[in-house]
Amino acid sequence: MHNSEILLHVTRGALVECLHRGHIAVTDSAGRILASAGNPEVFMFARSSMKPIQALPVLETGAAAAYGFTDAEIAILAASHNGEEFHTATVSSMLDKLGLDEHCLLCGPHAPYHAPSAACLAQAGIEPSELHNNCSGKHAGMLALALHLGADTGTYMDPAHPVQQRMLETVSLLSGYPAAKIVLGTDGCGVPVFGLPLVRLAAAYARLGELSRSPEQQPGRLSAAAKRIISAIAAHPGQLAGTGRYDTRLIEVTQGRLIGKMGAEGVFAVAAPELGLGLALKIEDGAQRAIYPAVTEALVQLGWLTGPESDALSGFHKPVVRNWKGTEVGEILPVFRLRQEG
Amino acid sequence: MHNSEILLHVTRGALVECLHRGHIAVTDSAGRILASAGNPEVFMFARSSMKPIQALPVLETGAAAAYGFTDAEIAILAASHNGEEFHTATVSSMLDKLGLDEHCLLCGPHAPYHAPSAACLAQAGIEPSELHNNCSGKHAGMLALALHLGADTGTYMDPAHPVQQRMLETVSLLSGYPAAKIVLGTDGCGVPVFGLPLVRLAAAYARLGELSRSPEQQPGRLSAAAKRIISAIAAHPGQLAGTGRYDTRLIEVTQGRLIGKMGAEGVFAVAAPELGLGLALKIEDGAQRAIYPAVTEALVQLGWLTGPESDALSGFHKPVVRNWKGTEVGEILPVFRLRQEG
Repeated sequence: MHNSEILLHVTRGALVECLHRGHIAVTDSAGRILASAGNPEVFMFARSSMKPIQALPVLETGAAAAYGFTDAEIAILAASHNGEEFHTATVSSMLDKLGLDEHCLLCGPHAPYHAPSAACLAQAGIEPSELHNNCSGKHAGMLALALHLGADTGTYMDPAHPVQQRMLETVSLLSGYPAAKIVLGTDGCGVPVFGLPLVRLAAAYARLGELSRSPEQQPGRLSAAAKRIISAIAAHPGQLAGTGRYDTRLIEVTQGRLIGKMGAEGVFAVAAPELGLGLALKIEDGAQRAIYPAVTEALVQLGWLTGPESDALSGFHKPVVRNWKGTEVGEILPVFRLRQEG
Repeated sequence: MHNSEILLHVTRGALVECLHRGHIAVTDSAGRILASAGNPEVFMFARSSMKPIQALPVLETGAAAAYGFTDAEIAILAASHNGEEFHTATVSSMLDKLGLDEHCLLCGPHAPYHAPSAACLAQAGIEPSELHNNCSGKHAGMLALALHLGADTGTYMDPAHPVQQRMLETVSLLSGYPAAKIVLGTDGCGVPVFGLPLVRLAAAYARLGELSRSPEQQPGRLSAAAKRIISAIAAHPGQLAGTGRYDTRLIEVTQGRLIGKMGAEGVFAVAAPELGLGLALKIEDGAQRAIYPAVTEALVQLGWLTGPESDALSGFHKPVVRNWKGTEVGEILPVFRLRQEG
């Protein structure tokens, strides 16, 4: 964690008021490092960036097909969503198909990330429910997998539960990192999160993209599952995050050519399926404001974004810092150069 | 900014998930460094930590006396308050005494920092006003000073305005740093903020405390103004911040023996008037969650807090990280040792 590199300056007037340090790894599916910043081997929790990988067993086992999940419902398996009405409706529909209700989601409630949606609830005097939890789609998928495996639905958060064991195996398989060496922690939503070297998160994304373009697309195969999750997210980028969010915009702007997913405490990962490559980022201090400028800059330096695409993301790339009246008082500026390796 | 030191670990399960780096300076009123971490000379914006110093001209000129400000109203001059009802009532009363209304405050509105107060407003469908802005007390003081100086009340945010010029002179005097070398930026509330070396912010707090204990307490003297702002804050710590806030608790727990004030982007400063010393802190990445553990640890290492006092602040010192359901998943841990100098 210590050999980080300064990625961003936060300016105010003529001064640099804050710095954000971090680590970036760009790899192929074998984990070969092509470009980096800081320490690409830094050991970190992937947090919600692992969700697209965790969606694979729900598809591969046939659980999603058995319950007739639509593409929008498959996309939200991988989401840290805004809790907008279209998100809660999607998860409600999944629970209906499972014959369960929101109290079966063990993620706990929190107010929608989407401020207008949170304000609407508050004005109506409605308490946020588990459906509004940004992880509710993932939890609905875990319930589907538990039912499909004939496992208990009341203990699916336990690391020893068949659902969590399947997810750990899939994370190990995609990342190429031994399951026994993956360090488990507890997420904000209660389920295990996966600790592994940053370079292995990049490799998992590279592998996910590679699998999705594999010619063998037989039902029940991992490649078919990868193809389905990538295509579902590309078709429904709003389900992955929501209005105004970077993850959604990155996919919209690139028309699904890049699939990126944030994680709490300064994590982001990107799959570039056409290139067979992945990128993973960790902001050392965990600041969310630092993620999007750093990722966008890295994507520009790698040539993964066209000029018009990076223009469309400019508000995320070099965001202006404004005061309460909306006057510009500073900006967040990427200051790193990726090291080309290999 | 670059020679920072790792001050805190943020853990999750068995891993360090994030780091926060920063700088600490502990000085006497001449700016002599007694203890430090990172680079005590780092150039930084003091942000709202300068408010107790900025309150001095409102007192020294006689403006506060002319408008009959109470101790609670004087305390809120220095506040980044929660926007609770008792805060907005205090600022309303000040504006009444000035014959002005909230639209004369040029700070812009924002929702109360205090979540239950913000929820109350939202439920009632009431838009937050300028009174709820955490800086509204400072702005009311600026209006009082403008009126008392016979200056325009519509342009008091302009760096060339007599109000801002007085504040700059006072910051320079207390910090011992030349006004011409102080770098101005724009605060979240629109007025100038003061850029200077961290060690000079510590010296300003040491000087403020020293002045407040000076035997010469003649009206109109800086020492009388310092005594009044310190005693007003000590008597009304809730005005400085509010329910659940560290600044308020630090003063309550030490019965006013220490006066501390946060600033945006990871700033804190403490006056220890009995010792004639000051402490200033800058978290490199600006994270608010890093301020209170680092300050409390520094105060413990310096022996400025007794055992029972640090026990009373333990929730701020080594805070537990919880998930949405309230389960403990990690903690924030100070990991630095202050260097003793001089």
